[in-house]
Amino acid sequence: KAQRTPPADLNEREAMRAYYLTVRRDSEALAAPLAPEDMVVQTMPDVSPTKWHLAHTSWFFETFLLKPHAKNYRPLNETYDLLFNSYYQQVGPQWLRPHRGFLSRPTVAEVMDYRAYVDGAMLELMEEAGAALWQKLAVLITLGLNHEQQHQELICTDIKHVLAQNPLSPALYTPPGESASAPALSWSEFGGGIYEIGRDMDPAGFSFDNEGPRHEILLRPFRLASRPVTNGEFRAFIEEGGYQRAPLWLSDGWNAVSEGGWQTPAYWRRADDGSWREFTLHGEVPLDENAPVTHISLYEAAAYAEWAGARLPLEAELEVAARGLPLEGNFLMPQRDGGAAPIIHPQAVNMSAASAAGDGPQQLFGDVWEWTASSYSAYPGYRAPSGAIGEYNGKFMCNQMVLRGGSCATPHGHMRATYRNFFPAAARWQFSGLRLASDL
Amino acid sequence: KAQRTPPADLNEREAMRAYYLTVRRDSEALAAPLAPEDMVVQTMPDVSPTKWHLAHTSWFFETFLLKPHAKNYRPLNETYDLLFNSYYQQVGPQWLRPHRGFLSRPTVAEVMDYRAYVDGAMLELMEEAGAALWQKLAVLITLGLNHEQQHQELICTDIKHVLAQNPLSPALYTPPGESASAPALSWSEFGGGIYEIGRDMDPAGFSFDNEGPRHEILLRPFRLASRPVTNGEFRAFIEEGGYQRAPLWLSDGWNAVSEGGWQTPAYWRRADDGSWREFTLHGEVPLDENAPVTHISLYEAAAYAEWAGARLPLEAELEVAARGLPLEGNFLMPQRDGGAAPIIHPQAVNMSAASAAGDGPQQLFGDVWEWTASSYSAYPGYRAPSGAIGEYNGKFMCNQMVLRGGSCATPHGHMRATYRNFFPAAARWQFSGLRLASDL
Amino acid sequence: KAQRTPPADLNEREAMRAYYLTVRRDSEALAAPLAPEDMVVQTMPDVSPTKWHLAHTSWFFETFLLKPHAKNYRPLNETYDLLFNSYYQQVGPQWLRPHRGFLSRPTVAEVMDYRAYVDGAMLELMEEAGAALWQKLAVLITLGLNHEQQHQELICTDIKHVLAQNPLSPALYTPPGESASAPALSWSEFGGGIYEIGRDMDPAGFSFDNEGPRHEILLRPFRLASRPVTNGEFRAFIEEGGYQRAPLWLSDGWNAVSEGGWQTPAYWRRADDGSWREFTLHGEVPLDENAPVTHISLYEAAAYAEWAGARLPLEAELEVAARGLPLEGNFLMPQRDGGAAPIIHPQAVNMSAASAAGDGPQQLFGDVWEWTASSYSAYPGYRAPSGAIGEYNGKFMCNQMVLRGGSCATPHGHMRATYRNFFPAAARWQFSGLRLASDL
Amino acid sequence: KAQRTPPADLNEREAMRAYYLTVRRDSEALAAPLAPEDMVVQTMPDVSPTKWHLAHTSWFFETFLLKPHAKNYRPLNETYDLLFNSYYQQVGPQWLRPHRGFLSRPTVAEVMDYRAYVDGAMLELMEEAGAALWQKLAVLITLGLNHEQQHQELICTDIKHVLAQNPLSPALYTPPGESASAPALSWSEFGGGIYEIGRDMDPAGFSFDNEGPRHEILLRPFRLASRPVTNGEFRAFIEEGGYQRAPLWLSDGWNAVSEGGWQTPAYWRRADDGSWREFTLHGEVPLDENAPVTHISLYEAAAYAEWAGARLPLEAELEVAARGLPLEGNFLMPQRDGGAAPIIHPQAVNMSAASAAGDGPQQLFGDVWEWTASSYSAYPGYRAPSGAIGEYNGKFMCNQMVLRGGSCATPHGHMRATYRNFFPAAARWQFSGLRLASDL
Ligand SMILES: [Fe+3]
Ligand SMILES: [Fe+3]
Ligand SMILES: [Fe+3]
Ligand SMILES: [Fe+3]
Repeated sequence: KAQRTPPADLNEREAMRAYYLTVRRDSEALAAPLAPEDMVVQTMPDVSPTKWHLAHTSWFFETFLLKPHAKNYRPLNETYDLLFNSYYQQVGPQWLRPHRGFLSRPTVAEVMDYRAYVDGAMLELMEEAGAALWQKLAVLITLGLNHEQQHQELICTDIKHVLAQNPLSPALYTPPGESASAPALSWSEFGGGIYEIGRDMDPAGFSFDNEGPRHEILLRPFRLASRPVTNGEFRAFIEEGGYQRAPLWLSDGWNAVSEGGWQTPAYWRRADDGSWREFTLHGEVPLDENAPVTHISLYEAAAYAEWAGARLPLEAELEVAARGLPLEGNFLMPQRDGGAAPIIHPQAVNMSAASAAGDGPQQLFGDVWEWTASSYSAYPGYRAPSGAIGEYNGKFMCNQMVLRGGSCATPHGHMRATYRNFFPAAARWQFSGLRLASDL
Repeated sequence: KAQRTPPADLNEREAMRAYYLTVRRDSEALAAPLAPEDMVVQTMPDVSPTKWHLAHTSWFFETFLLKPHAKNYRPLNETYDLLFNSYYQQVGPQWLRPHRGFLSRPTVAEVMDYRAYVDGAMLELMEEAGAALWQKLAVLITLGLNHEQQHQELICTDIKHVLAQNPLSPALYTPPGESASAPALSWSEFGGGIYEIGRDMDPAGFSFDNEGPRHEILLRPFRLASRPVTNGEFRAFIEEGGYQRAPLWLSDGWNAVSEGGWQTPAYWRRADDGSWREFTLHGEVPLDENAPVTHISLYEAAAYAEWAGARLPLEAELEVAARGLPLEGNFLMPQRDGGAAPIIHPQAVNMSAASAAGDGPQQLFGDVWEWTASSYSAYPGYRAPSGAIGEYNGKFMCNQMVLRGGSCATPHGHMRATYRNFFPAAARWQFSGLRLASDL
Repeated sequence: KAQRTPPADLNEREAMRAYYLTVRRDSEALAAPLAPEDMVVQTMPDVSPTKWHLAHTSWFFETFLLKPHAKNYRPLNETYDLLFNSYYQQVGPQWLRPHRGFLSRPTVAEVMDYRAYVDGAMLELMEEAGAALWQKLAVLITLGLNHEQQHQELICTDIKHVLAQNPLSPALYTPPGESASAPALSWSEFGGGIYEIGRDMDPAGFSFDNEGPRHEILLRPFRLASRPVTNGEFRAFIEEGGYQRAPLWLSDGWNAVSEGGWQTPAYWRRADDGSWREFTLHGEVPLDENAPVTHISLYEAAAYAEWAGARLPLEAELEVAARGLPLEGNFLMPQRDGGAAPIIHPQAVNMSAASAAGDGPQQLFGDVWEWTASSYSAYPGYRAPSGAIGEYNGKFMCNQMVLRGGSCATPHGHMRATYRNFFPAAARWQFSGLRLASDL
Repeated sequence: KAQRTPPADLNEREAMRAYYLTVRRDSEALAAPLAPEDMVVQTMPDVSPTKWHLAHTSWFFETFLLKPHAKNYRPLNETYDLLFNSYYQQVGPQWLRPHRGFLSRPTVAEVMDYRAYVDGAMLELMEEAGAALWQKLAVLITLGLNHEQQHQELICTDIKHVLAQNPLSPALYTPPGESASAPALSWSEFGGGIYEIGRDMDPAGFSFDNEGPRHEILLRPFRLASRPVTNGEFRAFIEEGGYQRAPLWLSDGWNAVSEGGWQTPAYWRRADDGSWREFTLHGEVPLDENAPVTHISLYEAAAYAEWAGARLPLEAELEVAARGLPLEGNFLMPQRDGGAAPIIHPQAVNMSAASAAGDGPQQLFGDVWEWTASSYSAYPGYRAPSGAIGEYNGKFMCNQMVLRGGSCATPHGHMRATYRNFFPAAARWQFSGLRLASDL
C-alpha cells in the first residue's frame, strides 16, 4: 500500500522514501495516457512540454539535493542543467522559455531514464545521510515534492492547451460523470476586525515561504457567496453583452478582450446547432451549466463581479473563510490507492457533501482556483531565503494576482487554507474561476 | 494679480473664473519655449505630443461641461472628439494612442484656436449658469483643472523624452542652479497600530475619487529614510554591479533590464572622460550627485532597496508620514506670480528648509515621485462614479504601482498627502525616485 | 527668367549655377504650402518627413561636393552627418530610418538655414573651381540635382501618405481639373528580335549608372495596350471579386492582401452613399474613372493582368516602345516659369495630345509609373562605381521590381526612356499603375 | 529488386506501381532513424515537422488522384484536408504554417497508417483504371512522385534545422567519409549568342511546368568556375572581414547580416580551441575545408562573388553548361539498391570522376544547389495550368531567386539540367552554395 501522505514526523525515513516514490510515480502516471508526440509540443510561451516538466522536477532534486549533498554524485548529462533550469539565475543560464518546444531530445524515454537515475541517487542519499544531514534533507525533499506537485498541475493545464489547439480534438483521461444541479447562490457573512493570517508556526507542516510570516490584518465586515460562479451564470453575463460592454472592464482587461478576440472563457466552443460545448481533457463535451466557470482571466472575473453588483474577495477574506474547514474537494486523483481514474475537470458542488460541511461557503477547496482582488505581494516582514532557493517565490511578487483554494488539477494533499497561488491577470489556461464577495 | 489657488468657497464665481484662466494659461506657458515641430512628435506609445495635451485638456471641458451644460454650444470641429478622447470608452471611439504622432493637423495654431474657443464658451457658461447648475459645474470645473494640471506634468515628461532622443540635445527652459550638499541619511520611526488614511470628508477641498473612502488600516512599526536616495548613492549601486546581479531583482525587473539594456537610470549618459552626465530639460549637464535619483522604474527602486538592506515603503506609510506637513517642495513653478522661470528638475534637499520642517522625513513633497511597494487597487468600499467620468481612475486599478508625493513637474497646489499617482512598474519617463523604508 | 533645363554643355558655368538654383528652389516651392507640423511627421518607415528630404538633399551636396572639393568648407553642424545620411555605409553611421519622425530638431527654419548655407558654399565652389576640378564637379552637380529631383517626387508621395492618415483630410496644392474621357483601349504590336536597350553612349546627357551598359536583348513579338488601366477598369476588377479570388494572385500578393486587408488601391474610400472617392494631395475627391489607376502594388497589377487575360510588360518592352517618343506628359509642374500651380495627380490621357503622338501607346511618360514583370537586376557588364557614390543604385538590385515612365510627381526633365525606377512588390504609396501587355 | 527509376513508357503499369512504392518507401526510410519526438518539432516557420511531410505527400495523392478519380474512395480523416494542405487555395483552408509544430496528433504511427491507407487505394486505382483514365493518372502520379521527392529533400533540411538547435547535438545517419582535396580552381569559357533553354518537347521525360516553354535567350560570352566555392575559400572571405564590410553586400543582405548576427554560414561553430566545426546530420564534425561551402544565403553568395572580383552566374549560363552532362553527382542515396547508407552532406569534388567528365565545370549536379543572379520569373509564354494544380509553381514567381543543380539531399533521378529550384534570398537552411562566373 502506497504512502500517500507525508509522514507526520520528518524523521520517519522509510515513510519519507515511500512518499517520495509515490509523488514521483504520480507524475509519471499523469503522463501515461500521452503519446511521445504529445509530450514535446509547446503551444505558447507559458506552456511547457510534458517531458520538460518530467525532467525539470528531476533537475530540481539534482540541483538542490544531489549536487550539494550526495557525495560522488555525477550528473547524468551536463547539458541538462541548461535545458531544465526554469528560472534560477543563481544556478546558471536557462534555455529560452519560448523555445522549450524546439527540443526533441532528450526523448521521452531518455527523460524517463533521467528520472530513474535521479530517483536512484535520491534513494541512496536518503538511506545513507547522517542524522544531521537528514534534518536538512527532509526539508528540501519536502520542498522538492511540493514543487513536483505544482508541476503535476501544470502538466494537466499545459497538455490541455496543447490538445485544445488540435482540430482533431483528442480525448484522453476519464470522461466527467453526470452533472449535479448547482445549489442556489446564498451568502455567508463575516465580521470585521483584526485577524491573523498566514502560515502557522507549527514546524511540522509544510508551507511555502510566501505564506508567511503569520501576521495581523484588518478586515471590514464582508460576505462571501456560497459557491463559485457557474457556467450557467456566466452564460447569462455573455448573453447580456458582457464581453461587449467596456464600462464593466478594467482598462487592461478591455485591451485583452479586444486583442485576444475573447467572447467566452477559454475552451468554450459553439456547436453548429448553437449549443455551447467545451474542450476538456476528455475531448469536447457539452458545457456543464452547473459546474463552476473556469479558464477565465482575472479580467473576466472582475467584469463579471462588476456586472453582478459585487466584487472579488480579498485573499485574506478567503483565508479567513477557509481556515478550519476540512481539506477536501475535487482535487487531482491519482493519490487515492485503488481509487477511480482522475477526472480532471471541475464539477458542480456536491450537495450532500455540502450539507455535511455546514452552512458556510462550499467548494472553497478544489475544482477551480478563485481569483482575488489582491495583488501578489510580500507579507509584512517577509524575506526570501538566501541562495538560489530564494528565487522560488519572492521574485515574482509583482504584476501578478493571488488565487486561492486549489483546483481539480491540484494534487490532493498539496492544498492549505494559507496557500497563495499567483498568475498574471490575463492568464486563462489554468483552472481559474471566481467567487463573489461584497461589503456588508 | 493672478488667482493662483482655487477659491476656498466654490461659490466665488469670479475667483473661479480667474483661477480657470490661470491654470489654462499655465499650460500654454509651458509650451511657450517649444517650436511647433517639438509639439508634434511622439517617441513612444506612452508619450503624447505637446499639442495633443493642449487639445485633449480642452476636449475634456468640451465633453464634460460644454456639451452637457452649455445651451447652443457647437463643437469647433466634430472630428476632435475622435482625435482628443484619450480613453473614455463611453464617449466614443479613440484615435489609436501609438499613432498620436501621425497627426500634423490640427496645427499648433489651430489647437490654440481650439483652446480659445473652449475658453470663451467656458467663461460664458460660468457667467450664465443658474445657481443650481453652478453647483454641478463647480465640481466639474475643479476636476477639469486638476486634470489639466496632470497633463501639465505630462507635457514636461513627454517633451523631455522627445528631446532626449535627439542627438542635437536641445536645451530649453531654465538651467538648474548650483547643487547643495545632500544631508546625511537618517531615519524616522513610526509606531504600529490602526491609522486612518484616505481623503478627508471635508467637501471643500478637492480630491480624486481614488483617494477615498477614508478608512482604517493596520500598520506595523516602521521607519522611513530622512530623504530620497540620491544620484550619488545610486551610483554606488551601479558601481557595485547592481544592474548585473540578478538576485537583487524582481523577475520581471530582470527581464526589463535584459531586454531594455538598462545600465543606469534613464537619461544618464557617460562622457568620453568617464564622468556621468544627465539629460535634463535644459540639455545635457553634469550629473548632480546630491539630487534625488530619478527616472527609475519600480524595478530599479526595488533592486536598490534590496541591495541597501531595506525595502520600499507602503503607500500608507508615506501618507502617515506626510500628513500634517506643509505642502511645500520643489514643484512646477509657473504658479508663482512674477516668480522665477521654472526649473523642472529635482534638487538636493534644501537644508534650511529641512531644519524648519523639523526632525521628520524631508522632501516628502516635490522633486521626485516615490515608488511604493503598494499595487494600485481600490480602497475598501470604493466605487467608481457612474458615467464616462467614472473611467477617470478606477479602470486602471490593475498592473500598476502607487507613487506618492509629487515631483518637480507637478504643479504647485495640485498635491495632497492622500494623492495616489500610479504607473506600471517598468515606467521610467516620469520623475520617479525612491525613499527607503524598513521594519522596526 | 529661370534656367529650367540643364545646359547642353556642362562647361556653361553660369547656366549650371542658374539651373542649380532652379532645382533647389523647386524643392522649397513644393514645401511652401505645408505647415511646419506637416514636415516633421513620419507615418511608416518608408515615409520620410519633408524636412528630412530638404536636409538630406543638402547633405548630399555637402558630402559628395563640398567636403571633398571646397577648400575651407566647414560643415554647419557635425551631427547632420548622422541625421541626414540616408544609407551610405561608407560615409558613416545613419540615424535609424523608422525613427526619422522622432526628430523635432533641426526645425524647418534651421533646415532652411542649412540649405542656404550649402547653397552659398556651392555657388562659391562653382565660381572658384579651376577648369580641371570643374570637369569633376559638373558631373557630381548633375548627379546631385537628379538626386534632388528624385526626392522632390518623394516629398510628394510621402506627404500624401502623412496627410492621408489624418481624419481631417487636409487639402493642399491645386485641385485636379475636370476629367476627360479615357479613349477606348487598343493595342500596338511590336516585332520580335534583338534590340539594344540602355543608356546612350552620348556623354552629354545624364543617366544613372543602372541604365547601362547599353546592351542587346532578345524580345519575342509582343503587344502593348494603348494606355494605362483606368480607375474605371480597375473598379470592374474589384466588383468581380478580384480581391477575393486567390487564383489570380501571386502567393506573396495574396498574403499581402490578407494581412493588409486590401480591398482597393491605396487611398480609395467609399462614401456613405456607396460612391467611390479618393484621397489626393488636394484632399478627398470623387474617384476619376477615366484617370489611370494608381497607388497599386505590383501584386495588384499582376492580379489585374491575370484577370484581364494579359500580362505585365517587360521593362525592355516598355523601353523599346518609349524610345524616340517626345518626353512629354503629366509631370510635376513647378518647372514651368509662370505656369499653373502643380496638379500632382494622374489625369486621363489627353486625346488631342494623343492623336498628335500618333498611333502608338499613349501616356508612356508621366501620370503613373508602370509596374513591369522585370525584377530589378544589373544589366550585363554593370559594375557599381567605386566609393560611397557607388551605393547609389547597385546595392538595391534584389527583391525589387522595375517601374518605367515617371509619374505626375516626377519633375519634368528628369525622365528618360531608359530610366529604371524600382520598388518592392508590395509598395503602394508611389504613383504606381500598370499597362497591359501580351504575347503575339 | 526495386524499381529505382520511372518506367520509360508510362504505360508500363507494373513498373509504375513498383516505382510508386519505391519512392514512397524512400520517404519512410529517411524517417527511420528519427525518434517520434524528432518528427513533431518545428523550429521556424520555414521548417515543417517530418511527420507533416510524410502526411502532406500522402494528402497530395489523395487530393489530386484519389478524390477525383477513385470511385468510392473515402478519406481516412476529413480533418486531414485542413492539416495537410500546404498552400492550395483552391482546395480549401490551410492550417497556419507557423503552427505546424502545434500538432501532436495525428501521431507518427497514425501518419504511417495514413500513408498505408493512401498507398492501398493508390495501388488499387492503378490496377483498376481504364486505359483512358490511366493516361491522366500516369501524368499525375509522376507529378506526385516528383513532389514526394522534393519533400524528401525538405525532410533532410528541416530535420537538420531542428537537430541543430538542440544543445545535445544529436548525430543521426551515416558520418561523412574522409575528405578529398579539392582541385585548384580553373575556368571554362562559353561563347555568346542565342541559345535555347528550358524543357525539351519530348513528352516522355518529366519536367515541372516552370521549366518551359523552351525558348531562345541571348547570352554574352562568359566563363564559369570549374567547381563550387569551398569552405576553405569561404573561410578566407571571413578572415578578411567579409561579414564586416558593407560595400561588398547588397543592401538587404547587409540588413540580414546585421539583424541575424551572421558571422559565418549557418551551422558553422567555433570550438574552444579556435578551430572551425560544422553541424551536420551526423552531428558536429570538423569543418571540411575541401567540401563546397553550403547553407549560405544569396546575400552571402553575392558578397563572396563581389569580394572575389567575380559575379554569380545566370540560370541560363548554368543550364547551357550543364546540358548534355551525365546526371551524376552526390545525391540523396536511398535510391541505390543495396548501396551504402545515405551520406547527406556535400563532399569535395571527386577528382577521378572529374577527369572522366572532361575539362568542363565539375560538380554541376549534386552536393550543393548553386545560387544564380536570376530572379525566379516566368519563361516567355509560360501559363500556369488551370485548377489547383496550377498553384504548384507559378504563384511563387516573385521575390525568390533561382538555384540550379541539386544537392546532396536531392533524390537521385530527380534532377535535370533544366530544373529550376527557388528560394528567397535570405534562405540558409537548404544545402545552398555558389559557383563563380564572370564576363569574358
Ligand atoms: Fe519549477
Ligand atoms: Fe487626460
Ligand atoms: Fe537620397
Ligand atoms: Fe508540397
